[in-house]
Amino acid sequence: MAYFDSASSAPLHPVARQALLASLDEGWADPARLYREGRRARLLLDAAREAAAEAVGCRADELVFTSSGTRAVHSGIAGVLAGRRRTGGHLIVSAVEHSSVLHAAEVHEAGGGAVTQVAVDRAGAVTASAYAEALRPDTALACLQSANHEVGTEQPVAEVAAVCREAGVPLLVDAAQSLGWGRVHGDWSVLTGSAHKWGGPSGVGLFVVRKGVRFAAQGPTDERESGRAAGFENIPAIVAAAASLRAVRAEADEEAVRLRELTERIRARVPSLVPDVEVVGDPERRLPGVVTFSCLYVDGETLLHELDREGFSVSSGSSCTSSTLTPSHVLRAMGVLSEGNVRVSLPTGAAAEDVERFLSVLPGAVAAVREKLGAPTTTTVAAVREDTLVVDALGRRCPIPVIELAKVIGDVPVGGTVRVLSDDEAARLDIPAWCEMRGQEYVGEEPVERGSAYVVRRVS
Amino acid sequence: MAYFDSASSAPLHPVARQALLASLDEGWADPARLYREGRRARLLLDAAREAAAEAVGCRADELVFTSSGTRAVHSGIAGVLAGRRRTGGHLIVSAVEHSSVLHAAEVHEAGGGAVTQVAVDRAGAVTASAYAEALRPDTALACLQSANHEVGTEQPVAEVAAVCREAGVPLLVDAAQSLGWGRVHGDWSVLTGSAHKWGGPSGVGLFVVRKGVRFAAQGPTDERESGRAAGFENIPAIVAAAASLRAVRAEADEEAVRLRELTERIRARVPSLVPDVEVVGDPERRLPGVVTFSCLYVDGETLLHELDREGFSVSSGSSCTSSTLTPSHVLRAMGVLSEGNVRVSLPTGAAAEDVERFLSVLPGAVAAVREKLGAPTTTTVAAVREDTLVVDALGRRCPIPVIELAKVIGDVPVGGTVRVLSDDEAARLDIPAWCEMRGQEYVGEEPVERGSAYVVRRVS
Repeated sequence: MAYFDSASSAPLHPVARQALLASLDEGWADPARLYREGRRARLLLDAAREAAAEAVGCRADELVFTSSGTRAVHSGIAGVLAGRRRTGGHLIVSAVEHSSVLHAAEVHEAGGGAVTQVAVDRAGAVTASAYAEALRPDTALACLQSANHEVGTEQPVAEVAAVCREAGVPLLVDAAQSLGWGRVHGDWSVLTGSAHKWGGPSGVGLFVVRKGVRFAAQGPTDERESGRAAGFENIPAIVAAAASLRAVRAEADEEAVRLRELTERIRARVPSLVPDVEVVGDPERRLPGVVTFSCLYVDGETLLHELDREGFSVSSGSSCTSSTLTPSHVLRAMGVLSEGNVRVSLPTGAAAEDVERFLSVLPGAVAAVREKLGAPTTTTVAAVREDTLVVDALGRRCPIPVIELAKVIGDVPVGGTVRVLSDDEAARLDIPAWCEMRGQEYVGEEPVERGSAYVVRRVS
Repeated sequence: MAYFDSASSAPLHPVARQALLASLDEGWADPARLYREGRRARLLLDAAREAAAEAVGCRADELVFTSSGTRAVHSGIAGVLAGRRRTGGHLIVSAVEHSSVLHAAEVHEAGGGAVTQVAVDRAGAVTASAYAEALRPDTALACLQSANHEVGTEQPVAEVAAVCREAGVPLLVDAAQSLGWGRVHGDWSVLTGSAHKWGGPSGVGLFVVRKGVRFAAQGPTDERESGRAAGFENIPAIVAAAASLRAVRAEADEEAVRLRELTERIRARVPSLVPDVEVVGDPERRLPGVVTFSCLYVDGETLLHELDREGFSVSSGSSCTSSTLTPSHVLRAMGVLSEGNVRVSLPTGAAAEDVERFLSVLPGAVAAVREKLGAPTTTTVAAVREDTLVVDALGRRCPIPVIELAKVIGDVPVGGTVRVLSDDEAARLDIPAWCEMRGQEYVGEEPVERGSAYVVRRVS
């Protein structure tokens, strides 16, 4: 049994547990009160703030605690946009931000604001020059994650921060995925984090606004946390969050080397162990513990169940594992295969033997799913029958449209085309990705009744 | 050492502590995930929701968990106002709601909405007929607390709910102070609560929206908690909150009788133990553990320090204990004395001996503060000198203006007047209250340079 989904939530760090227990009896009172229980709670809160600020690399009075990383992101974006309203209503985000950032951007747009999404390359990274191009005179705020939560790619935060600073635009960095590994470098203006990502308890977000950044808290506020996070402070959890951040930082450099070696094994060996796999995300500039790959002709949900049965907890950006039946926006923005997508994110302390066992069971799990779905083997050769074939996959979900395409591509002559009719969102991503993997030509998409026709020309 | 401020925050209940510890190892994963750790977390969350819904008296799918009671109130008010925008933009609140409700109302008003504050009587209670009068065709929402947090007065929620139902207007009930004691009766539409008020952990609010209430969540949302509370769920704390709510409910009836007897002792004996005291709040319809009184000629902050030194943690609505230097809005709305205000709110399990010891140290503590301030003794008799006296208390804070008034009232003849010049907000409340307690006539307030003149006529 191995939990390989720490990018979703990490198990509670032993130091967090200890600190939480120790402060349950000391930290329940109202820190705004002047009596002894209140003063004790205030001391704990102040000490936690100092510790967290030291870890982030900011002043203690720049940092407040929120009830979640999501809340910190929502408050940060709304507050800076309001504080800089006179500059304009333009917001820049990368296309691969966490959904909390994108949801805040949607709300901004629905309220009449303008949003520019900066595209990423096939590895999931933005460039500073793309941010420079996106900046406008009315840009109030730019947002960029420190590292991507689905594929682990690190973003060039310092470079983007420099470009923004030059233009006088604050940069908000969602550091949820990287804060346990180290400080965020560069001249950022606002930073957010989430304790349960580094082994702290749920219910604690970090929210830092540098001095000098125009900020106007939105919605009802109160006197707590400098007016930036309303509601009674969750002090035992805050103490545990700060203590565990220090603890994971103390072991971060060493653990990063170890986990990087383990994820490198997965990156290197999965493509040879499993046919028709695409490993995604930057191979070098990436989080130590995250590796993501997609498997052709595989239903992500079924694969996750197979792996769960084998004792591995991983996640997926495949469309069939989401309630919206659309592939993850990150994979879409990268233009990579989404079907059979698997994200492995190792928690600190992950055992090498578990990784080896994962590598030993993965090929069988993928093969089992492919067999159930009747996926083509890579050696299929069929007689050529017609110049153009139409595959009707309407109403059928990922990965069936791609499987049907693969089954018939050998039935048209080189130069012939296959038209795949599909109303599945994933096909838009996965058919071009299949073409790239298979060396076939993706001609394009045409609207048809109830969906699209994806046209593929056989090249080889 | 006795903690008598459970209305601010209650110490963690042993059951909450146990449940929290037990679920730290089971409840840290993402309940939206399909692997075993996620399924386990989901089971815990679902069970907690069932238990909390049973305690509230609602369907499980009507209840979500937020990060605080404040957050539940903010989300509830904003969401119903938005959901019923077509009906109109009128909001009704009582004048003695918790600040979280009043802050949300201020935001609504700042955004162009209309707000009616329903007045309370001298005991702090609203009437259903006052709500009926406040209702308008464009009323989108009415709010009423189940019981007041500062003076313990219970509100006629069921009657107000009936009036609102009749008008087709939803009623939001802030049940933070009473939920540990029992269900809220009546046909309410939205209900909020806060776990740390009943001995649950910090970081958990309850937020209930009855089926059929038009509700549109505001701000960025995500798929968690039915789209009504964004951000990663704090499951261990939620489990602890639900478990402790059940536990306190099981002992509530018995404990209510016991605490009511203890607070009745304070209500009955403080006026005879301490001269010039006004006990405030409804003597019958009140929370079991809360009793509030105000002491003439006393600086609330100094009194709290005296009591803290004696080992008692209580709170105060006096102006000098708040950063705004204004008396609590609750005491103002009731029109009662605010100086030397003390709220005693007994936690469950409070010991009778501690209450007795409180009653034994209180007179000395009050006398010490009065002596420091040079307060008049009640037997002061002075020669009559003039028909009208002017007391210049500009720049001097509560309780000095009242003390100065009391010192000179004997210097004017019966029928003569004293004009107290003051720029202290508390004087507006405390000078009329003093007149009522002393049987003198409060003539009124006139603007003067840098403040007001409060005119008092000597009657006896």
